Amino acid sequence: MQIEIITSGLMRDVHQKALLDEYIRRMQWGVTLIEFSPPSSKKLSSDQLKSLERDEYLKRLKKDHYLILLDERGKDMPSEDFAHHLEKLRDNGQMRIQIAIGGADGFHRDILDKADLTLSFGRQTWPHMMVRIMLAEQIYRAQQILAGHPYHRA
Amino acid sequence: MQIEIITSGLMRDVHQKALLDEYIRRMQWGVTLIEFSPPSSKKLSSDQLKSLERDEYLKRLKKDHYLILLDERGKDMPSEDFAHHLEKLRDNGQMRIQIAIGGADGFHRDILDKADLTLSFGRQTWPHMMVRIMLAEQIYRAQQILAGHPYHRA
Repeated sequence: MQIEIITSGLMRDVHQKALLDEYIRRMQWGVTLIEFSPPSSKKLSSDQLKSLERDEYLKRLKKDHYLILLDERGKDMPSEDFAHHLEKLRDNGQMRIQIAIGGADGFHRDILDKADLTLSFGRQTWPHMMVRIMLAEQIYRAQQILAGHPYHRA
Repeated sequence: MQIEIITSGLMRDVHQKALLDEYIRRMQWGVTLIEFSPPSSKKLSSDQLKSLERDEYLKRLKKDHYLILLDERGKDMPSEDFAHHLEKLRDNGQMRIQIAIGGADGFHRDILDKADLTLSFGRQTWPHMMVRIMLAEQIYRAQQILAGHPYHRA
């Protein structure tokens, strides 16, 4: 599998980066983090920011990739179901996936319309940077579940 | 508020510790992490392990504290609801809280019976150590929500 994680904002905290990198390093699947600088929020409304962010996503989304959005309003899927969802994609020859992480206000409608699947991690609000680590962990967990590795129930 | 987090296992990873400590450091509420060594799992069944873990929890639980369990089968509560739940406890004079984090197999029935509230962070399975960081973040977020601080929607 080839998975691109597309996110707004640059991760700078050395400890967050270390935890994220550790999951990516352990992965047999190819996982790439693509960060873009968030639009400056000075004097911009939430809607204007969302539109600018939409343009950044649109530049990076690829037509032949399966698009997953992470959004508080998405489907709360158990780790095993997520793993088997990826397995089905793989079995159908869909090996290229993009996952975009939304901000507090969610995605612009144009991005929501393009999504093949929208996921959430519970009903809680999480810091943007923490969601990246959580996502990397869930992708790693999915890989280990599909490999029959005991990581998942260790 | 005085919050004790009671957990099985010792956090050793320097990066995980740094993230956890950062949330605890920023807290105006008193938050203490209480770790105990997990029972050795050699030749023990899941039920035997749960019983040994139960004994460790029972040694540390205090009657006058409000007990929250974190468990995959618990209630998935939005961050704002969690904050307002804590606010109500505070308003009722219940300032002492213990939060216990369960393992993959969950808690022994004797611990479940003592719980005032059982929470989950979504339907995903998370690493035990990551749950501590997620929990510290949600407590910090609750504090900031109740203080009217913009952290929650930043």
